[in-house]
Amino acid sequence: MSDVIGGGTALSDLPLREDLRGRSPYGAPQLDVSVRLNTNENPFPPPEDLVADVTASAEEIAASLNRYPDRDAVQLREDLAAYLAAATGVTMSAANVWAANGSNEVLQQLLQAFGGPGRTALGFEPSYSMHPILAAGTRTEWHPAPRRADFGLDGAEAARVVAERRPDVVLLVSPNNPTGQSATVEDLRAVVEAAPGIVVVDEAYVEFSARTSAVALIEEYPAKLIVSRTMSKAFAFAGGRLGYLAAAPAVIDALLLVRLPYHLSALTQAAARAALRHAEGTLGSVKALVDERERVTRGLRELGLTPVPSDANFILFGRFADAHRAWERYLDSDVLIRDVGIPEHLRVTIGTPEENDAFLAASKTVREEMAQ
Amino acid sequence: MSDVIGGGTALSDLPLREDLRGRSPYGAPQLDVSVRLNTNENPFPPPEDLVADVTASAEEIAASLNRYPDRDAVQLREDLAAYLAAATGVTMSAANVWAANGSNEVLQQLLQAFGGPGRTALGFEPSYSMHPILAAGTRTEWHPAPRRADFGLDGAEAARVVAERRPDVVLLVSPNNPTGQSATVEDLRAVVEAAPGIVVVDEAYVEFSARTSAVALIEEYPAKLIVSRTMSKAFAFAGGRLGYLAAAPAVIDALLLVRLPYHLSALTQAAARAALRHAEGTLGSVKALVDERERVTRGLRELGLTPVPSDANFILFGRFADAHRAWERYLDSDVLIRDVGIPEHLRVTIGTPEENDAFLAASKTVREEMAQ
Repeated sequence: MSDVIGGGTALSDLPLREDLRGRSPYGAPQLDVSVRLNTNENPFPPPEDLVADVTASAEEIAASLNRYPDRDAVQLREDLAAYLAAATGVTMSAANVWAANGSNEVLQQLLQAFGGPGRTALGFEPSYSMHPILAAGTRTEWHPAPRRADFGLDGAEAARVVAERRPDVVLLVSPNNPTGQSATVEDLRAVVEAAPGIVVVDEAYVEFSARTSAVALIEEYPAKLIVSRTMSKAFAFAGGRLGYLAAAPAVIDALLLVRLPYHLSALTQAAARAALRHAEGTLGSVKALVDERERVTRGLRELGLTPVPSDANFILFGRFADAHRAWERYLDSDVLIRDVGIPEHLRVTIGTPEENDAFLAASKTVREEMAQ
Repeated sequence: MSDVIGGGTALSDLPLREDLRGRSPYGAPQLDVSVRLNTNENPFPPPEDLVADVTASAEEIAASLNRYPDRDAVQLREDLAAYLAAATGVTMSAANVWAANGSNEVLQQLLQAFGGPGRTALGFEPSYSMHPILAAGTRTEWHPAPRRADFGLDGAEAARVVAERRPDVVLLVSPNNPTGQSATVEDLRAVVEAAPGIVVVDEAYVEFSARTSAVALIEEYPAKLIVSRTMSKAFAFAGGRLGYLAAAPAVIDALLLVRLPYHLSALTQAAARAALRHAEGTLGSVKALVDERERVTRGLRELGLTPVPSDANFILFGRFADAHRAWERYLDSDVLIRDVGIPEHLRVTIGTPEENDAFLAASKTVREEMAQ
């Protein structure tokens, strides 16, 4: 860092927006440990045929990287629509799908179009910690509402809160991160019926759940319901950054007004299409992860810990008098999990069987030392 | 489109933000014509050794796409710093560099950090048409100020306007798109001295200019000056989507508060690093394009048209009583150029010698029919 220029200038010397002053950047620590179970990644690397297909796609694209990508990513959206139709049984077309660099960008674009200054977004917490950050980034006022004490969603109460507070945007995560429960179709219907504006159901982890997807309700509520998804988890494509959504075509028309032109690189589009061609293989890992989730849930119970029943590829569990200290003790055992800021609880991502064994072994130690 | 769901819902049925109603999406038409000289792409495809290197990088990355990318893209920023140091003679480190999905995302992040509701951004128009759109997207009030009648920047007048209007952010494009002229170091210094806030110099086309880069002034004005760049043009990497900036490290600290986590995919980071390893080869095309620019400028003059002297890889030229009709006539000749909305003028990107010949031949026809 001896070559740095302007190093004498501090953040406090800059005319940063007042509402950003004193904030810390978002982010789980990226630490170099043996067992990384902290960011809900899929632990299984892409199969060889997928790697070969991504490589071949990159080679083809590389020869024309001097040209801008398809601004509207039409072929990728066609492939995503075909995948969604097969996965949900809801026939749809590319006109129903939008894609961006991770579901974070999808959600940011939605808040730019339907939220923003003078508007509000409501979420049921604890939930995905990026949602209030995305609201702040788009100057949308964030209204948190509580989940039940067991972290489940009370559909009738949720609908009542939405009807009362009248948020412009509802962000509902199902299965919920970091707690793991899915909303039922009845819950979703109650919230959408009560909502005066847009309801975004964030289904980042839906492939790990047996529940009906909210996609089934889009045709019924085309002017209200948007379902966001990601290829980061079940598709084992976190490094490729591909989030997408399903909605009425008018929603995509709205996003065209706020998206940055050429936001999705030609490599991203091609690599995501390659990953979709191998969906069957990649999604084969989902069943193994679900089985492991149930095994880890049982293992934690047997240790006298308290796992929250999960529909996703992670488990929230407790109880620790000092959750952060327990997190550090896991780290001492070379196991990186996540302190999501819920008192007495930590979140563990489901890894490979070996990683889960290492986690359960560490849990035994930590339990003996730390659990309440 | 028979499979579309929710197709009966119109954009006007959605609770779109009021300030977006009635707007049209940004974007040059992506038409299927023989000679595409409309988006300032580099016409030379990546050389074979670069294609091979991008392919090998993609293969390596593909095997771990189940993992999130380096959130801070440190290795890529080190490589960009080394390139910038070599190109400008200003020694710097990764701490001085930030990268995102195209310079549009870099600029959006800057406006999120230093602009936003209640703040203003000022640009000298005609200039890059995305700037007011990015301002609107971040709810930053846009203040346009005029360039001289010949489209050059009057440094003293620009400084006077900035001192008078006191914008939070100044966006100054050099070489300016779509008109082609660079600001001098004296112009830049005058504007930065007058500015109460941040000055962003957008150097997307700087490699095509012989002028000193604004990077040389960062050490002098670390709390004010930010220089944005792109790999889309000189680097022939438009499809890879990689924009970056150079600034004091505190500016990067500010951007960490607004960037989306994991905004840059592992493939983008790896492919951009491969492209930087071959910078010498790719940038070899720059001299050829500059020579062609001068040849096309002369050719237009010989036809009795009026090219604006350009420091970039495009030329603004006129004069046509009806510029849009002239644009259509070029399209009839299978040559796609750009109507940038400046009366009596059109913009042509410098292509391969053959493409430029086709453009000049079409110009002869259009000149005979349409020029004033």
